[in-house]
Amino acid sequence: MVNYYRDIKEKPVEGAYGTHIRWLITPRTGAKNFAMRYFRIEPNGASPLHSHPYEHEVFVLKGKGELLVGKETALSKESAVRKENISEGYFGLIEENEVHQFKNTGEKDLEFLCIIPIKEENIPEEEKNV
Amino acid sequence: MVNYYRDIKEKPVEGAYGTHIRWLITPRTGAKNFAMRYFRIEPNGASPLHSHPYEHEVFVLKGKGELLVGKETALSKESAVRKENISEGYFGLIEENEVHQFKNTGEKDLEFLCIIPIKEENIPEEEKNV
Repeated sequence: MVNYYRDIKEKPVEGAYGTHIRWLITPRTGAKNFAMRYFRIEPNGASPLHSHPYEHEVFVLKGKGELLVGKETALSKESAVRKENISEGYFGLIEENEVHQFKNTGEKDLEFLCIIPIKEENIPEEEKNV
Repeated sequence: MVNYYRDIKEKPVEGAYGTHIRWLITPRTGAKNFAMRYFRIEPNGASPLHSHPYEHEVFVLKGKGELLVGKETALSKESAVRKENISEGYFGLIEENEVHQFKNTGEKDLEFLCIIPIKEENIPEEEKNV
């Protein structure tokens, strides 16, 4: 399967600001172990500071932003995170249960790939292999 | 873990022509399920037509090329493959045991990400979590 990313429908990410997702490679298109998604965050947009029990592998394609990431502590989420500046060519591993947030701090869209392991709970119904 | 791809040492890919790899996210740096690699193929370079029992998920970053991919048949490898033109923004899933080959058909480097599931046999010793 080969395709072009703009031929995949972009959808808003609920609970995030100015953030959009394309599900590029998923169980529906044959993936068995991990899924590739393409994110676009508008200027001033951000994902919420959140965590989940699976990892992200990220590669930044365009734009400039900040990635907040760290281990969650009993004190507060904010106290535990560090801030990483990201732009084209930066990549990262966000480990399972690490809190994290993407912010666009530039004047153009921030675009990046985000790969996740395929689990029952993190694949939308329409992207499952049914 | 956040890093910049050029800060990762590039290594030649044995058995391929003008092909170089950077191991970006691996068991050594905390990955448990899948590994992210950055490939650079010089003009006129190519990987061999080959197959293996694990999949690739690929996203093209720069350059122009061809991806030959298909199911291996008893007749010959070449007879079964189809040719896909690839350039920035194209992505693909090469399923386990599909034969495949990347060729740079442009005048600049062809660069792409290639993510694989982590298995004992496909991670170099120096990238394992020891």
